Amino acid sequence: MIDDMPQPNLRTFQLPGKRKPLGVVGGMGSLATAKFLEVLAQKSEVEKDQDHIPYITLSLPNISDRSRAITMGSDAPLRQILERAHWLEKAGCGAIAIPCNTAHFWASEIRYALSIELINMIELTRKFLYCTTEKVHDIRTVVLGTNATMMQPLYPGTNTHCFGYDFWQQIIEWRDCTAVIIADVKAGHITRATETLKQLVRGVRSLNPDAIVLGCSELSAISGGLAPEENVVDPIGILADGCIQWWNDSKM
Amino acid sequence: MIDDMPQPNLRTFQLPGKRKPLGVVGGMGSLATAKFLEVLAQKSEVEKDQDHIPYITLSLPNISDRSRAITMGSDAPLRQILERAHWLEKAGCGAIAIPCNTAHFWASEIRYALSIELINMIELTRKFLYCTTEKVHDIRTVVLGTNATMMQPLYPGTNTHCFGYDFWQQIIEWRDCTAVIIADVKAGHITRATETLKQLVRGVRSLNPDAIVLGCSELSAISGGLAPEENVVDPIGILADGCIQWWNDSKM
Repeated sequence: MIDDMPQPNLRTFQLPGKRKPLGVVGGMGSLATAKFLEVLAQKSEVEKDQDHIPYITLSLPNISDRSRAITMGSDAPLRQILERAHWLEKAGCGAIAIPCNTAHFWASEIRYALSIELINMIELTRKFLYCTTEKVHDIRTVVLGTNATMMQPLYPGTNTHCFGYDFWQQIIEWRDCTAVIIADVKAGHITRATETLKQLVRGVRSLNPDAIVLGCSELSAISGGLAPEENVVDPIGILADGCIQWWNDSKM
Repeated sequence: MIDDMPQPNLRTFQLPGKRKPLGVVGGMGSLATAKFLEVLAQKSEVEKDQDHIPYITLSLPNISDRSRAITMGSDAPLRQILERAHWLEKAGCGAIAIPCNTAHFWASEIRYALSIELINMIELTRKFLYCTTEKVHDIRTVVLGTNATMMQPLYPGTNTHCFGYDFWQQIIEWRDCTAVIIADVKAGHITRATETLKQLVRGVRSLNPDAIVLGCSELSAISGGLAPEENVVDPIGILADGCIQWWNDSKM
């Protein structure tokens, strides 16, 4: 338990143009955080080290299980996520990114508690879905992710909320399969997880959804070669784009 | 320029067992930092999020070019690296890792300036070379890296110091080729860089060295499928092992 968070003082980093670094709440999980930072570096498309986005990543992974808490109606992880976000804010960061879908169930509370911007992955992904499908209503989206993310309406038009209860059994099967993939990624069984994800996505396509959302950063972490395929949406890539946009805007 | 570093106060994170997180000085470069964090997560071989190594990564990449400074006899980047390492120390980190070979030219100065351990990638790699080649003298090592790393004796028995000046022209060619690969990685041209690195390693093998050291973290970042091959040594993987060892030891 982190019950005595350090309080870095408020003096800010003197980056060029007095811009402030990005703050990343990591550790949910650790591999997914690293993959997010990799995507951020690659998408930045700058020529030299010095032009990359400055950031502080606070990865203290002893945060209670997010999916379990939501399913049980608890908000135990929220306090821990907020402690980390506040620490980054006090360290002088200019915005917060959280490369974890499930943590975004508390996006409103986090945004409300911070005086700096939360670059909201779910909101950005929603906008992306509305733009790419050109639909505001009746989007048919399959979200693959933790139990909480799959069974509750984090993304618009998802799973039972969209396909109806006729597909309940099917969605339960996908949920269980996805849980195995996520556990495999967290435990480092990457090859097996990647193969299972490919098979799962092929199965999901049979429902002909408007989009398949990789709604857990562990899935994004193993999605190489998958996400660019038609109608597979990767929120981690969208979050990286949002961070780059924030950084470029902060130049003004 | 960072001329007014924030000074987080000294209260430490209350992690289980009062252990302290790892501090990572990142941004040299940003993709290489992300790849190091990925290797760290994968090598940790733990089952769940909460068991991963806690860390703070401070990635403020506006550090002067390390290779150019060394070649010109300047130590301008040292002050910037020390500022970052000190900030991590004051934030409550228990040890410092720097996933950049060239920065280790100042390893002695950094270690001397810190009151916490520097997990020294070069020292660990040296030990690895001595153990795997079972030689203390006359190790014949080809180091691929920045100009500074290739032309000066950062690693034992390297390049002209080992192969003699008859190979001067050959080593200059490898150095120039490596510089192109590193620039490509920093600019995000990963496919081209990976292919060129493979060709280069094939060429280097013609000298039949005891080891080929990927002496720049940008090379490590694209070495997937290469490093496990016989006699290719990846210091970034060795640094990750060293961090895991430090973390496990800190349990005592």
